[in-house]
Amino acid sequence: MALQVISVLWKAHVEDRPVAADDFEVATNSIDPQAMGEGDILVELLYLSVDPYMRGMMRDSKGYYRQPFTPGQPLSSRGIARVVRAGPGVGSGFEEGDVLSGMLPWSSHAILNRRAQAALQLVDSRLLGKLPLPCFLGALGAPGMTAWAGLKKIAEPIKQGEVAFVSGAAGAVGLVAGQLLKTKYGCNVIGSAGSNEKVALLQQLGFDAAFNYKTTDTAEALTQVAPDGIDIYFDNVGGPTLDAALAAARPHARFLACGAISQYDTPEDSRYGVKNLMNVITKRIKLRGFIVGDYAAELGGEFHEDMSQLLLAGKVKALQHVTQGLENAGAAFVGMMGGGNVGKALVQVVETDPFPVQQ
Amino acid sequence: MALQVISVLWKAHVEDRPVAADDFEVATNSIDPQAMGEGDILVELLYLSVDPYMRGMMRDSKGYYRQPFTPGQPLSSRGIARVVRAGPGVGSGFEEGDVLSGMLPWSSHAILNRRAQAALQLVDSRLLGKLPLPCFLGALGAPGMTAWAGLKKIAEPIKQGEVAFVSGAAGAVGLVAGQLLKTKYGCNVIGSAGSNEKVALLQQLGFDAAFNYKTTDTAEALTQVAPDGIDIYFDNVGGPTLDAALAAARPHARFLACGAISQYDTPEDSRYGVKNLMNVITKRIKLRGFIVGDYAAELGGEFHEDMSQLLLAGKVKALQHVTQGLENAGAAFVGMMGGGNVGKALVQVVETDPFPVQQ
Repeated sequence: MALQVISVLWKAHVEDRPVAADDFEVATNSIDPQAMGEGDILVELLYLSVDPYMRGMMRDSKGYYRQPFTPGQPLSSRGIARVVRAGPGVGSGFEEGDVLSGMLPWSSHAILNRRAQAALQLVDSRLLGKLPLPCFLGALGAPGMTAWAGLKKIAEPIKQGEVAFVSGAAGAVGLVAGQLLKTKYGCNVIGSAGSNEKVALLQQLGFDAAFNYKTTDTAEALTQVAPDGIDIYFDNVGGPTLDAALAAARPHARFLACGAISQYDTPEDSRYGVKNLMNVITKRIKLRGFIVGDYAAELGGEFHEDMSQLLLAGKVKALQHVTQGLENAGAAFVGMMGGGNVGKALVQVVETDPFPVQQ
Repeated sequence: MALQVISVLWKAHVEDRPVAADDFEVATNSIDPQAMGEGDILVELLYLSVDPYMRGMMRDSKGYYRQPFTPGQPLSSRGIARVVRAGPGVGSGFEEGDVLSGMLPWSSHAILNRRAQAALQLVDSRLLGKLPLPCFLGALGAPGMTAWAGLKKIAEPIKQGEVAFVSGAAGAVGLVAGQLLKTKYGCNVIGSAGSNEKVALLQQLGFDAAFNYKTTDTAEALTQVAPDGIDIYFDNVGGPTLDAALAAARPHARFLACGAISQYDTPEDSRYGVKNLMNVITKRIKLRGFIVGDYAAELGGEFHEDMSQLLLAGKVKALQHVTQGLENAGAAFVGMMGGGNVGKALVQVVETDPFPVQQ
């Protein structure tokens, strides 16, 4: 019996800002579960993640750390899926009903061979029904681990009372980074974001100071709220904000180069030029880029234990911005790139969440 | 009996390129050795160093890690001096005839109180007559230690065969950095410099490749000589060369932010903007600024032993560019900033070097 499948395809590489209606295409086809090969599994997609790093894969560029998307094929990203059926023969050990997270195609259902299964892992079943599924793509997923591991590997040792600045602070990574800097490390935390609503949220979440970079000059704001400078800068945006942070840095500041979302929609040759790099020398700044995947093997287990405890205890709040329906995934991506989300942006693919959290 | 003293004074802060005839003033006065206070010493200056970091002290800026020079007063820099007379009372233990190195005023003679003596140290007398005095301001002084300590603290661990790029490679720091990368670490070393003569010298000294950045595009040159990219970048120049190095970097490259001489004569608001910083994220680059003084206490002894052995064994060649006469110190500084030197730029103040090396 053939199964109707909806997919979202990538149309062609683009240099400037992608447009939902132009660059993504919703397609329907069918797959035959009877035709599953040796070791294959059939999964249904529950949630999928939209993340800034995907912007690099929409460009025809060799410079990025991931291969570009293939025009005419479904996009892919991290997601949560459930095993509907395990095919004949020896697979990866996944069974019907298992909930998995990892790299998945943007398709409502998919048959995954053993190679594709290697990019997936079981969701910790002890937490199902206790933490919402989207959490496994957010604070307890790659963005949360990005914040947690970046601070551990690049910013530590962190002294209580150090001044930390987080840009993109209402985004998936920034929200976790700011809360960890506050509750786990005892820093004086400043956040910047792109709307007054986001600023109010940061203040509710315990940030010591927050400002709207669209209505306040970042350099001036930092001079106001951190007159003696900043010790840690968690950079999610790059561009002029990085320049302002370099000027505001104290000696021996640590700069975590996590993202540069302000520049992702800009063609390479017209990107913002950072002028204040001489501060790196005079202030002995450590600026270090990192990608969460590099730390997965080393730190994945410790992160999972620590962060799940922080979340269950309410010491870190996980916020998600959920778009309903796979057919709206392109719009969800474009909206997230434009700053429309608060917390982790994701798409609910399945109509009814199978593991609602009892409040 | 009064002593005639020649000094070189700093006239006023300048934003753009200093001019020897306008910005430095040779003045004569006299000092009375009889008037020396408790613990004072009288020294005669033998050599003085001219260094790019001094450019920051010629600006009226708080942003630098050293205080600006005081208009109307002698400049100061590292130098070599000899104690002519130790005054009455208890001093710092320096005696007549001692050869000292450290921060000194640009004066042919000076009376130094105990506070000023604290910035000086005895030159290793075992090496006098074996290594030329200028060496103690170059390969065996602060520039040499900058190269040695930067590689140790920021670039290590270094694997044999890694590709290292050194800009400003014919300068005081670059020449030592390149030779250490080659002979101590076994790297494949590329150097850039600003003349064909310098390029030829780098090739003689064992650099695997060298190019003239004024006649060759740096990005193209790096693509040619390092088609698989660079693992280490020892940056003495900043600006567009840093952009090219970011583009050429391999994953996990280490960038030593040592200097940015291409930008020192540029007012802050018109400095070159570095566009390729996104590579820091995608390639997980570590970019770290450092100042040699931070490592002096921890590593000074080890550096001195290691480097003096390398120099005595001829494994690192020390090159100096010597200008004769204190009255020409301003011109020596300006010439060095313009790239007129090969190796360590310094000024011989005393007419006859008291410790010539027997060849």
